[in-house]
This record gives sequence, C-alpha cells and structure tokens, in this order.
Amino acid sequence: MQSNRTRVQQWIQTFQQFSATPSEGVTRLTYSNEHVQARNKIIQIMKEAHLDIEEDGFGNIYGKLVGTDSSLPSILVGSHFDSVPNGGAFDGTAGVIAALEVATLFAEHDFQPKQTIEFVALVEEEGARFPGGLIGSRSILGELPVEQFEQLVGFDGLTTVEAIEQSGLTLPQRKARPIDTIARYIELHIEQGPLLENSEVDIGIVESIVGLRQLAITVIGEAGHAGTTPMDLRADALVAASKIIANLPTLIHDQTEAGTVITVGHLEVYPNGANVIPHTVEFMIDLRSSTNESLHIATERLYDYLKLHETEEIQVKLMDKLQVEPIKMDKIMNDYLKQSCKERKYTFMDMHSGAGHDAMIFAKHVPSTILFVPSHKGISHSPKEWTEIEDLCKGIDILFDLVIQESKCQTK
Amino acid sequence: MQSNRTRVQQWIQTFQQFSATPSEGVTRLTYSNEHVQARNKIIQIMKEAHLDIEEDGFGNIYGKLVGTDSSLPSILVGSHFDSVPNGGAFDGTAGVIAALEVATLFAEHDFQPKQTIEFVALVEEEGARFPGGLIGSRSILGELPVEQFEQLVGFDGLTTVEAIEQSGLTLPQRKARPIDTIARYIELHIEQGPLLENSEVDIGIVESIVGLRQLAITVIGEAGHAGTTPMDLRADALVAASKIIANLPTLIHDQTEAGTVITVGHLEVYPNGANVIPHTVEFMIDLRSSTNESLHIATERLYDYLKLHETEEIQVKLMDKLQVEPIKMDKIMNDYLKQSCKERKYTFMDMHSGAGHDAMIFAKHVPSTILFVPSHKGISHSPKEWTEIEDLCKGIDILFDLVIQESKCQTK
Repeated sequence: MQSNRTRVQQWIQTFQQFSATPSEGVTRLTYSNEHVQARNKIIQIMKEAHLDIEEDGFGNIYGKLVGTDSSLPSILVGSHFDSVPNGGAFDGTAGVIAALEVATLFAEHDFQPKQTIEFVALVEEEGARFPGGLIGSRSILGELPVEQFEQLVGFDGLTTVEAIEQSGLTLPQRKARPIDTIARYIELHIEQGPLLENSEVDIGIVESIVGLRQLAITVIGEAGHAGTTPMDLRADALVAASKIIANLPTLIHDQTEAGTVITVGHLEVYPNGANVIPHTVEFMIDLRSSTNESLHIATERLYDYLKLHETEEIQVKLMDKLQVEPIKMDKIMNDYLKQSCKERKYTFMDMHSGAGHDAMIFAKHVPSTILFVPSHKGISHSPKEWTEIEDLCKGIDILFDLVIQESKCQTK
Repeated sequence: MQSNRTRVQQWIQTFQQFSATPSEGVTRLTYSNEHVQARNKIIQIMKEAHLDIEEDGFGNIYGKLVGTDSSLPSILVGSHFDSVPNGGAFDGTAGVIAALEVATLFAEHDFQPKQTIEFVALVEEEGARFPGGLIGSRSILGELPVEQFEQLVGFDGLTTVEAIEQSGLTLPQRKARPIDTIARYIELHIEQGPLLENSEVDIGIVESIVGLRQLAITVIGEAGHAGTTPMDLRADALVAASKIIANLPTLIHDQTEAGTVITVGHLEVYPNGANVIPHTVEFMIDLRSSTNESLHIATERLYDYLKLHETEEIQVKLMDKLQVEPIKMDKIMNDYLKQSCKERKYTFMDMHSGAGHDAMIFAKHVPSTILFVPSHKGISHSPKEWTEIEDLCKGIDILFDLVIQESKCQTK
C-alpha cells in the first residue's frame, strides 16, 4: 500500500492557498479566515473518507473511524494546521495531510480497524496568535485549564473567546478530554533541520524531544567615552559579553550524542552609541538537550562558566526564564516504524527533536511518537520551507503502517 | 594673579540653569531659547569686562580686547557653549567661563595687551542639533562653506537659517574669517576621561588630538532554528562577531603610548529572536590614535584581523564610515603652559585628547592648543559630569598666564 503522491501534492497546494499572505508564504493564524478555510477543507476531506466529524470547544477537529471494538480508547493521528506569519506549506500542515491521506487510504480499501482511529487537526501549536503555543494539545489534555484558555489574549488584543466568535465558528462546550479515551498519539512532521537531507536518509525516528532552558543574562560594566577612556580603565560590557558568547559552543563539544545545542539569538547593547563604551549587554541563552542528565550537566557547566566571567569591574547576572523537561517517544512504536522502514527499503535514523511539538504534550500522558521527513536545507518558518512530495509520501507510508498496526486492523 | 573661585562657581551655576531640562542635566541646543539666554549672559559679562562685542553670521560671540598694536592678528581664547541633550555643566561651558574669567581679570587690573585678544564663545560643537559637529569653528575657518552651513537641516527638521530666525537672533552677513586675522587659538576644556583624576594631576597638556577611523562591519552567516540545527552545521553570525569583538583590544596592546583605543559601541543582531540562530550582526568599530603612523598600523592590523575571521560559512564585510587625521597641538605654547604649572606648583602631564574639539579645527590653520582639567570619574555627556571648582580655577590660572604671554601683555 502506497500513499497517493498526486493527491498529497494537490492537498499541499490547496492548503498553501489558505494564507493571509499568499505571495509571501503561509500565514494562517488560529481562528482567522484562513483557519476557517482550512478547517472547511479538512472536514470535506474527512467526510469523503467516511469519517465521523467532531470539533471540540477549542477548534481541534477529529475525523473518527470507529473500530470494531468501540470499548477501546482511540489512536490519535495528526498534527497542527496553524502556521507562523510568513511560514511555509509543510510545518504542521504536512502532518495533517499525512493523517488525511492515511484516512483516505483506509476508506479506499474499506479497512476496518479493531481500535478506533481519530485523525486530528490541532489548533495553535505555534503560539503565533496567542502566547504560549501548543494550545490545542494542552487544552485537550487539561494542561491548559478551560478558564485559562478563555482568558488568553492574542497579540491583536482579542481573547480566544472573542476570536472564535469573530471567526463565525460554532464550537461545543469547552472541556478537557478524559485521558482514558486516548490510547496513542502519532504524528508526522517535517524535520525543520538539515540532518536527514545531509545524511541522505528518508525517515527520522524521534527518540526524544529535547528539554530546554532559557536564561536571560545581563552583563554590567561601565559606560565611557570611546575616545577618552584608556583601554586599561574600561569595564566594557560588550567585550565581556563577547568573550562569553564566543566560547559558549565549546561548553558542549562533548555532548553531540545527547543532541545538546546552545544558542544566543537575542542580544541588546546599551546605550548602543558608536562612540560610547557599552555599560550593559543583555542576551538570552537557549540550551537544549535530549536527556535530563545531559541538560543538567550542560546547565551546571554554564553556571560555572558564567561565574568565571565575573570580575571586579564586570557583573554577570542570570535569570531563569523557561524550563522544559526532555521527553522520550514510545520505543515500541519507534521499533515498529523502523521495521516498516526496513520492509519498504526506506532509510531511517534515530534522532532527537530540537523543537517542541504537540507529541511532547501527549507523551506525558499516553505512549506517543513523532516521525520526521526531510526539510530542504533545514529551512523552516519561511516561505522557502520545502519537502519533496516523494519524501513526504515515504513518511506517510510508514505512518500508515504504524496506524494499521496500532489500530489492530486486518488488511487482508 | 589667581582666578576668582567664587565668581567662577557662580557662573557655572548660572549657566547650568540655561537648560531645556533643568532637573535632568544641561540641554542647550544651538539657537534654542537656552542658547539665547546663555548668549545674553555671555554678552553681559563681556560688557562688564569692557570688551567690544561682536557676533558673526553663525552666532559665534567675540569679546575683543584691542591690543596696543592693532595691526597684529588676534589671540583667540574660548570654547563652545552648546551642550548635548541631558549633558553636564562643564563640557564647553567651562572653557567659555574660563575665557570670561581671564577677560574679567584683565579688566579688573586694566591690563593692556600688545596683541588683540578675542574671548570667544562658539556654537554647535556637539552636533546635537545639526549633523556634523564643530560647526562654529568650521564655519569661521571656511571649512564649512556658507552655502553648506545654510542648507544644514537639524534633527528637528529646521535648517540653520530657519532655526536662527526662530531664535530671534539678528546676525550679520555670514562669511568665513580671513585666516590672517587669527594668530593663535587657546582653549580650556574638561578632560572627559579619568586620567588626570586617577593620576592625581591638576592639568593635562594636550600634545595631540587623536585621529579617528570608524568602520561599519557586517558579519553574515545563516539563520537556523536554535533547536533543530546541530552545532557543527551552524553559521552563527553572533558567535563569529563575538570572536571578533572579544579580542579586538589585544590588537592594540602595544600602542598604549600612542593613545590608541578601539571600541565597539553599537551592535545589532538580526533577526534577534531568542530561538533563532542570528544570520547577520552589524557593528561599528571606533579606532583612535594620536599619530598618523600609529593609526595606520592599527588600521592595517584591523583589516588583517577581520580577514582572519572570514570562513566558508561566515562573510565579514567592512565599510569605512569616517576618517579624521590626528593633529598636533602647538609645542611652544605647551612648553609655556608647563613652565607656568611649575611656577604655580600645579602638577601636569602630557596627554592625547581622545575626543574631538574646536582646537583641532583651528590647529589646521594657526598654532593652537587645548589644556584639560580633571573630570570626576571621567564622566561626561551626563548630568553627573563634574569638575571641582578649585581644579577648574587652576586651569584658568594657567590659561591666564598663557594669554598674558601670547598677547605680549605687560602686567607690571
């Protein structure tokens, strides 16, 4: 059984048009007009696949294929259908289309699973309209309580409730879903990194989604005139900050296996005048690693390293801003994915996901996994985001095999 | 003969009030209401010192004490009376007050110079209202042609001509001054650096005003997701820029004697998101040194050093933004200043001026010098700018001695 390359390509093109910026990538904010267009198309495809449609109070869409043993909890298969502003056609959407393609294959062949499958399209993973992100999955699982969801204020000033009302969507009562109704969560996503393409590998089997520490660093020296302050009397906050940043990567050189990465993406200089020695530099350190242990080791080293840069003239202050635990994907499902790759002669590799995904929310509650397909040049959150349809469809084939397996579906 | 400490202190306090931001330092932009208030006070003091008052078409104020040999060119003594926004009470103003005090001492003792002395208060040294700075002195000397002066547009959108009109000042025809009417230019200024205070020295004798190179540097790498891009596949523009900046000071370690200093004051990161690897960093390098030779050596080293940081992944582009030649102050006058210090038992040291001054414009045309008095903690361009009145008055005493000498005045 192979996924239909032509159909998948058409769907990618169709969903790409549901954008507020059609000539500059995909901009599909949650509860926007484009959200509603995409939602209507998803429901249409689900109906064509003979699924029972449901929406929850948050706008998440479910297409149900009821199993022969309806007492069993459901296998959830899907991803999110929102985008960042000026994003690409694949982040999230590719996983929703993958689920819809699997559903369509089931319908075409009249496959009957024992365990109910729910093909899902989730809202607001990106946090592009409402702060926080992963809002669809967190709401389903009660991690974001309904009252908190309803009080979320978007970057345009509207609350979730107001935005839903403005969208014209009629949604049922908002409530979290009992966890015993979910057996598994399975997601396909683009890698958003260059590893698969560089390694010429078809499928990434995600062992874990990395944990994250974000620290805000403030380096404080003393301002002075760039012409009148001798070099040996300076307390230049930017020179001090540069020394810290220049050697940050060396802190984790031995942690490649653990997928540890460290980044300074945001930095501000004060007062930022060409002829004034900076008195203060603020920057954010983003540290990620695949296990609690490796994240802990890297964090300890970072603390020590920052302390080393304190002198009589230079203060280095740090503040913890964000902490997310690493989480493992389900090994049994991953082993099955690998077996399926071998049978289909698709190449695969184990990897860590450096980015967060809805799967990491589900994984705290039920066995979950996520599989990656290659991203061209690793580019994501950009109109240039691209995955070859053939590559995407290999991922869908493997996803299909896993859904057949998990839903205990007899195909012959 | 000693300057009058009480009078000098009162004048500092009086001029400090001519500020658009009286509770937040001195803000006295050229041709503003506060400019007119200060100008009126300067003229009043000049009149009390029996000087002949003149203004030129640019707003520079001259108080003339005509010498017994009126065929000789004039000795100019003064500084500027504008300020930066939220600046201090001493930058520029202290030198104007010093000139006024010397004039007042001449009047009190009815000293008659052989050579005409002109006590001057110059406009727009800072470039805080009109771009460029040193506008009063450059206009006097024809370095800024009248047509260009008249077309200058201030940061508030008004031209010089419109600003003068709005101020209510009635100025004569604008024209440069024949250089053969000027014999010398002598200025007192606060150091705006910490050297005198740290060395516990009364007077700084300025050997040269440093030359300046400003270069705009652009470091270009490649953006990427902070979580999904492995460390060894990154082209992080901020890590590359940090390596450059961290070691810039080592480039000029052996040039302390030449007063070479190097500073990065302004830096911008793009796109500057906490979880995005920066693709571009822009920053300005400000390089100063006291001789053409040392400035040249440092610049060559800098070019080589920047080239070293180019890799296959990282581009380093540079653009020359500003180039000012170093200029020497008059050795004969400086020797006389030192002799005077010795006689009065004031301590002194040779130094370079790391900041630009009107004296550096005059020095291109006539023998000129500038002497420094201590700045507390080296702070300038700040409401905290401070010089002890006793320190300032020691400078005025030395200035007085030099003016007596240069104007060939018989005091006994």
